[in-house]
Amino acid sequence: MDLHFSYARLLGFAHNIFRNIGCSEQDAATAAKALLSADLRGVDSHGVARLSGYVRLWEAKRVNSNPQLKIIHETPSTAVVDGDSGLGLVVAPFAMQVAIDKAKLVGSGWVSVQNSNHFGIAGYHAMMALEHDMIGMAMTNASALVAPTFSTDRMLGTNPIAVAVPAGQEQPFVADFATTTASNGKLEILQRKNKPAPQGWVQDKAGQTTTNANALKEGGAMLPLGGDREHGSHKGYMLGSIVDIFSAVLSGANYGPWVPPFPAYVPMPENMPGKGIGHFFGAMRIDAFRKAEEFKSDMDNWIRAFKNSKTITSEEKVIIPGEPEREMEAERLEKGIELLEPVVKDLQDIGRRFHVQL
Amino acid sequence: MDLHFSYARLLGFAHNIFRNIGCSEQDAATAAKALLSADLRGVDSHGVARLSGYVRLWEAKRVNSNPQLKIIHETPSTAVVDGDSGLGLVVAPFAMQVAIDKAKLVGSGWVSVQNSNHFGIAGYHAMMALEHDMIGMAMTNASALVAPTFSTDRMLGTNPIAVAVPAGQEQPFVADFATTTASNGKLEILQRKNKPAPQGWVQDKAGQTTTNANALKEGGAMLPLGGDREHGSHKGYMLGSIVDIFSAVLSGANYGPWVPPFPAYVPMPENMPGKGIGHFFGAMRIDAFRKAEEFKSDMDNWIRAFKNSKTITSEEKVIIPGEPEREMEAERLEKGIELLEPVVKDLQDIGRRFHVQL
Repeated sequence: MDLHFSYARLLGFAHNIFRNIGCSEQDAATAAKALLSADLRGVDSHGVARLSGYVRLWEAKRVNSNPQLKIIHETPSTAVVDGDSGLGLVVAPFAMQVAIDKAKLVGSGWVSVQNSNHFGIAGYHAMMALEHDMIGMAMTNASALVAPTFSTDRMLGTNPIAVAVPAGQEQPFVADFATTTASNGKLEILQRKNKPAPQGWVQDKAGQTTTNANALKEGGAMLPLGGDREHGSHKGYMLGSIVDIFSAVLSGANYGPWVPPFPAYVPMPENMPGKGIGHFFGAMRIDAFRKAEEFKSDMDNWIRAFKNSKTITSEEKVIIPGEPEREMEAERLEKGIELLEPVVKDLQDIGRRFHVQL
Repeated sequence: MDLHFSYARLLGFAHNIFRNIGCSEQDAATAAKALLSADLRGVDSHGVARLSGYVRLWEAKRVNSNPQLKIIHETPSTAVVDGDSGLGLVVAPFAMQVAIDKAKLVGSGWVSVQNSNHFGIAGYHAMMALEHDMIGMAMTNASALVAPTFSTDRMLGTNPIAVAVPAGQEQPFVADFATTTASNGKLEILQRKNKPAPQGWVQDKAGQTTTNANALKEGGAMLPLGGDREHGSHKGYMLGSIVDIFSAVLSGANYGPWVPPFPAYVPMPENMPGKGIGHFFGAMRIDAFRKAEEFKSDMDNWIRAFKNSKTITSEEKVIIPGEPEREMEAERLEKGIELLEPVVKDLQDIGRRFHVQL
């Protein structure tokens, strides 16, 4: 089985599938590009591997493929967007554009989103700000997998935060990270390979730290960044909470243990207090603070200082956030993307169903 | 020696000292209240214990006790404030007020600050937003003590982030944390007690993790939240970097390894690229997103859900960010604040010098 695909081929395939579940031409293009950005950047867990998951959400009527996106409340620098149960891959770029448009007018724009679904990788949306010489921010809540410090209950999602900052001659600074010790994607890799997880990634049903990568299937939970109290897990818990509050309490979406699950077969939580999943986006125009050229020159200086800082071993280098993903993107644009065999089979299944050639 | 002092007595003393180094009546009141908030909230490392440090910065002419604070650039939702080398304890409340005033007009306000000094605890400034039914944010960079992942060089400060969110019947959510595994204050306690530090807090000169709490004095560094790569230290490094960029690259302050040190006897870094220390503040009006009453009712629901989540042991409880500090504040307002003997002696020394009764 050929597991190698060009970016264009996978992009076209995803686009076609999104058209087939009822997306408009424009929405299908937007969603496919956002989805594939994960494969390009090496976040394989969030890319085409999830395409069939989105299709199943549509089948289960948990996703509306033809949403009427609208701003339901706004001020000059803020807005709440109602995603009308649309694909997060479509809702998020719309909301981020609202933030950018507000920043053009009044210096910054901040948009909280209700009634959305999973939006792919946060970094993609934050990076939309870069071409406008703006700092971009994106975060989202997600279904609960993470226990707060001292608890056995799953109360928070892996709730990622992305911040993209333009530079001058250097490449932009792009941070994009789950607020847990390790992302769920990394945990899934260990599960597939039947390998143990490092201490501090997960706890078992009783709340004891464990190296069992499958602990989540047995009533366990993921751990907030820090892992345990002594190593600052309360800080990871606070970060995840801030993402949850900005994304969902501020917009009227579901929060905490009530966030809808991604797998369509998992029942929806009871007594949901809001609408769909929540996101939060921000855009700040650089020249709303100082001359963009001066800022970029200082960012170049910042980046070079960190790049040139002394390393512990000669094989390691100090990484600037966004650097590994950018290198991966260049490589995969040139050489193509290698998928796992179950992912290819899954895509072939969807293809057959909609009469679309992979 | 009596080590117990009422809040009012320490507040009056600090006020008097700030007057004596040349602060205006209003600035002295602002600075004393901000400084003492640390003692009230149990962050003993950042309170009156530092008063003599501020005095020494003034003696070394690194702090201007009569600054002309001004907005040097602004848009409707953003500003840069020049702190004119003032006490951060005075500059920060001014800048946070600018953010709040902008939020009143256009929904949110975001202020980056150059040319400032240490501002005490971040949480105090973020909490200024609460009485206006706003979410408040505050962050600051600080002199470099922290090594990025894979490096032996100190490139970042402990760069704290604070976020304060109003609730309804419940008390506000107030997160305030250093972006390192443990704060420098906690490390100093271990140093004083001659106790080892847990793994993941510090590394030695060669970049190896160590339990030597004094490793910093021997060329070592503090570690970003996460501790090591396997436990997500790259995420702590990203967080500290974001604070540094928002606080200093956006304002024109010093960043990375060039941030001025707090102890007045430590030489200033060479080739400093900016002015003083940088801070960043944000204020978002709740009703710029949705009705404040609806939001607060959801925040109450959020807080109660987390408070009531199951605990690992019956002795532990799930903590809502800000809860322990609030309890401490109530206790210390009633029963007074107990200082360490060296701190009392230090305060007596300053008192004698300025003919102020402790």
